[in-house]
Amino acid sequence: MQFVRFTLAGETDVRSGTVESGIIREFAGDMFGDLAYTGRQFELSKAILKAPLAPRHIIGVGKNFAADDAVKPPAPELPVLFFKPQTSVIGPGEAIVLPQAPEPVKYEAELAVVIGKTARNVPAEHAGSVIFGFTVSNDMSASGYYHPDGHWTVGKSFDTFCPLGPVIETDFDYRSARIQSNVNGVPKQNSPIERMITPVDRLIAFISRFMTLSPGDVILTGTPPGAVAVQGGDVVDCFIDGIGHLINPVQAAD
Amino acid sequence: MQFVRFTLAGETDVRSGTVESGIIREFAGDMFGDLAYTGRQFELSKAILKAPLAPRHIIGVGKNFAADDAVKPPAPELPVLFFKPQTSVIGPGEAIVLPQAPEPVKYEAELAVVIGKTARNVPAEHAGSVIFGFTVSNDMSASGYYHPDGHWTVGKSFDTFCPLGPVIETDFDYRSARIQSNVNGVPKQNSPIERMITPVDRLIAFISRFMTLSPGDVILTGTPPGAVAVQGGDVVDCFIDGIGHLINPVQAAD
Repeated sequence: MQFVRFTLAGETDVRSGTVESGIIREFAGDMFGDLAYTGRQFELSKAILKAPLAPRHIIGVGKNFAADDAVKPPAPELPVLFFKPQTSVIGPGEAIVLPQAPEPVKYEAELAVVIGKTARNVPAEHAGSVIFGFTVSNDMSASGYYHPDGHWTVGKSFDTFCPLGPVIETDFDYRSARIQSNVNGVPKQNSPIERMITPVDRLIAFISRFMTLSPGDVILTGTPPGAVAVQGGDVVDCFIDGIGHLINPVQAAD
Repeated sequence: MQFVRFTLAGETDVRSGTVESGIIREFAGDMFGDLAYTGRQFELSKAILKAPLAPRHIIGVGKNFAADDAVKPPAPELPVLFFKPQTSVIGPGEAIVLPQAPEPVKYEAELAVVIGKTARNVPAEHAGSVIFGFTVSNDMSASGYYHPDGHWTVGKSFDTFCPLGPVIETDFDYRSARIQSNVNGVPKQNSPIERMITPVDRLIAFISRFMTLSPGDVILTGTPPGAVAVQGGDVVDCFIDGIGHLINPVQAAD
């Protein structure tokens, strides 16, 4: 099933719905609980899609794909993890606003895992049971704001630096995912998920060993090789077959 | 004015209130908006205090106090910043649960700034206008879980690693704060806030340049020299005159 959040032309209220055959069925309440359909339906083509959820925590994973020509290294004991703030989230079509210098600012297409259950100390073999669904993310990164001691916090956290969408797909075999991206129509990234170093189930197991995961937490699972710096005026398209295209224009700093 | 969240013996509902002369006046709704007092009052001595707010973002600052015998260095262009998750928050009296090895796990007494207004690009000279109040925090840190590349995320983010409390004090001149702590009654930290390297107003200015601050965001402003490793069975008391004592027992890993 596909979940969306959306507005209608001329309105500001953010509505929630599920999508089937180009039609959105609106529901009220919490997508992680019981859905209460309102009976209202809208054409998907007339809806303005927003980020498909307002995440609780956004947990990013760094250095998690092997280079195309390299033997895949073993999963590290301690993955590179970072948080992005809720304020960094935007939806499909919304502008990524670049900070003032220094450059470069890179985009990074990623598979985003949406957690649906409260979870602590989940074994990797049961990780699937706490996953609600999947969306596409673009983990924008301004490496000029990385701290020389190694902290990525500022460079990962600018407003607009976490596009999410277009939908949350709950019926998706992530083991067959390919992560792809284009900039201005030119292909840049195209890797199968088996090039991921610490796989999704082990990431969930690892994270839930130190923090309780909760419905609405999102894990950005790392980006494959090929992502590049972007400039104002570029259009970035991050996509995963079976979930969809997350397309955002890039806007130079004011 | 002092704000608390609390439960009553035998109940689980978390209530909110303001405190005066040992009496809690309960209110409903949002402390950052209009207070609606319920008319119910409780003796502070009979209330079980919880963390005084459920933070939105928790933004930590590292390496932000000069050593006692050192000339204070200038504020860096890029402070060391990190996030702690909401799941790390506990209140006064609640147990800090240590992770499994590796040791050491240190506590760090800090002044916590509670943001009360939505704020972007706040100049340092107006930073005071976005502050709601202040509380005491204990930024628990398991350096054995710091990534060799410099990321502190995991070591800062364990459940129970962010005690906050006992109250949010809105009438407090932070420029006169002394940050103090004892472990098992033995004094460990005692520094005036003028030893802070990037001061509170400049931290707010810096952070609001990359992310929109919102009511409920909390900034942990860094710890003075003297914090030490703790073990199961220890009792940590972090305190700031004018705000109060944040006392937590330490519990070994299960």
